[in-house]
Amino acid sequence: MTDEQDARRRPTISDVAALAGVSKGAVSKTFNGGKGISPDTMTRIRAAAAELNWIPSTAARAVSGGPARAVGLVLRRPAELLELDPFFPALLSGVESVLSEANYAAVLRFVNDANTERECYAELIGERRVDGFVLTDLRHRDPRFEWLTRLDAAAVVAGSPGRGCPFPSVRTGAGGEIHALVRHLIATGHRTIAHVSGPPGLRHARRRQQLWAEAARAGGLTPGPVVVGDFTADGGGRATRELLDHPTRPTAIFYANDLMAIAGMSVLAEQGVRVPEDIAVAGFDDISLANYVTPALTTVHCDYRRMGQVATQMLLSRLRGEEVVQQFTIGAELRLRRSTGG
Amino acid sequence: MTDEQDARRRPTISDVAALAGVSKGAVSKTFNGGKGISPDTMTRIRAAAAELNWIPSTAARAVSGGPARAVGLVLRRPAELLELDPFFPALLSGVESVLSEANYAAVLRFVNDANTERECYAELIGERRVDGFVLTDLRHRDPRFEWLTRLDAAAVVAGSPGRGCPFPSVRTGAGGEIHALVRHLIATGHRTIAHVSGPPGLRHARRRQQLWAEAARAGGLTPGPVVVGDFTADGGGRATRELLDHPTRPTAIFYANDLMAIAGMSVLAEQGVRVPEDIAVAGFDDISLANYVTPALTTVHCDYRRMGQVATQMLLSRLRGEEVVQQFTIGAELRLRRSTGG
Repeated sequence: MTDEQDARRRPTISDVAALAGVSKGAVSKTFNGGKGISPDTMTRIRAAAAELNWIPSTAARAVSGGPARAVGLVLRRPAELLELDPFFPALLSGVESVLSEANYAAVLRFVNDANTERECYAELIGERRVDGFVLTDLRHRDPRFEWLTRLDAAAVVAGSPGRGCPFPSVRTGAGGEIHALVRHLIATGHRTIAHVSGPPGLRHARRRQQLWAEAARAGGLTPGPVVVGDFTADGGGRATRELLDHPTRPTAIFYANDLMAIAGMSVLAEQGVRVPEDIAVAGFDDISLANYVTPALTTVHCDYRRMGQVATQMLLSRLRGEEVVQQFTIGAELRLRRSTGG
Repeated sequence: MTDEQDARRRPTISDVAALAGVSKGAVSKTFNGGKGISPDTMTRIRAAAAELNWIPSTAARAVSGGPARAVGLVLRRPAELLELDPFFPALLSGVESVLSEANYAAVLRFVNDANTERECYAELIGERRVDGFVLTDLRHRDPRFEWLTRLDAAAVVAGSPGRGCPFPSVRTGAGGEIHALVRHLIATGHRTIAHVSGPPGLRHARRRQQLWAEAARAGGLTPGPVVVGDFTADGGGRATRELLDHPTRPTAIFYANDLMAIAGMSVLAEQGVRVPEDIAVAGFDDISLANYVTPALTTVHCDYRRMGQVATQMLLSRLRGEEVVQQFTIGAELRLRRSTGG
């Protein structure tokens, strides 16, 4: 057996303490937050640890089953959407603000297919790289519910969870706001209110379309036309051109996000179509530029940053073994601006 | 000594193999990429590992000094900037696209102060949570060069590294483009070209201001006025109001990023100032909306996604022990659009 040789070769906390000229307690404290240790001493201890190639607590904690002090986010979307879709940076900003306070890290993985996705969840939790997950971009009959249940992994959903979700969830309750927006458009004389949707595979895109259709019906209209967009500026521009050529030309367009709406307004301007006089325009998200385009964009304000914060707080509570509310809803707000004549 | 008791309590790879009814090799393969193992078998093996609470390779690898298959990004900026500044999501998107191919994770930490920042680098590398770092948001005389050298950590800089940087770096070489922009403004009759800067503590903000001032001087102008912005839409609006009240009212404004420029254009429109007839406007970054505002925004296109990709590729090469080019420059492109009368 080579255990003894290993032990001889592998440095111990005592070696580090001796080299740095401090107690073992000081070494331990340095690698567990550093409370009560001066910066200079910590630097000396870290240098000693580096010199001896000594591996401190986390790896040992992982082997002994302690917490990883990290939360995983596995995203099955192209990494380039990060720079196009404002939802994820806002969510991540909220997640990070809570993790940062708790001295936790976020472990991010982008994956391209279901097999890699599944492997990735299993590895991150199995190898104790993370203590739990924040799930987002929920899909119809999301398979992650079953995978994570089998892995006995802690998780919280940021978004509308759908039926059969075994995890606590935080969503934005924008139903009332989309209804109020459509009512406002109907009250100001619109009878053909088009929708430019997000990718139909995403639950939140489906949900926005569904709420728009419900609201139109509730107001006595036949919902439509609908053009499928992809949440990008280019997609919004393309969808807008399609609507201008549509046999049933709308007098108002509700876009499933602001990026598509702003790109759409630019296409309308280019074609000499006045907003809001000829076509009223509304978006969803309230990105920081929505208030700065001309005319300012009517939209539904969603606080995704707060969604990320609450989801992460819930996950950390669960990891501490505390009771957690099962469903949390963050209110949205309708922001009527000039693009709907508001 | 309790080692034997530990060994008795702690499950081994053989226990997992026995419970799953497979070979030890199959268990090992499952937790090292899964090559040649069917999804069903992997599921069975993972379930067995979960049931026995067996900890596979990474934790063991960490103790034995193997790679963490993770790259760290430590950001000393408020987490909310994530949703406001388009640079970071684009960079991260590039980083993630390369990591995702290599089956690596990104470990993200947001910190508020220098002490926590320093601790964080030491912990991530000392505890083998990451194999190396991508450094960004470089500061004047950046202290991280010394910290990471002392920790013997691998790192690559995404951004302009400044003097004395011991690490390879990737930057966008936008010097020529800022000069060309200022020359274009001078050629079209502008004699007072203002600048709205980013936070002066950030190297890239200082650099943009410096290039603008150089170019103005090269064209025979006295650079100015300058108003300090903060890269946010609000900051851009505020700075624009200040410039309108300035004793030396400019006929052109070069904003250090697009977000401030677009917010600025909205303030100008509100005040009845026509763009480009009364004041020409230019930004920097070329965010996806720059081409969709009215008038379309002249800006310098920087491929931050590619910057993230190249930096990450360089870091992974270094980690494999390969030779790496010391300085890599990604070209920028001047995009002349209607906001400068182009």
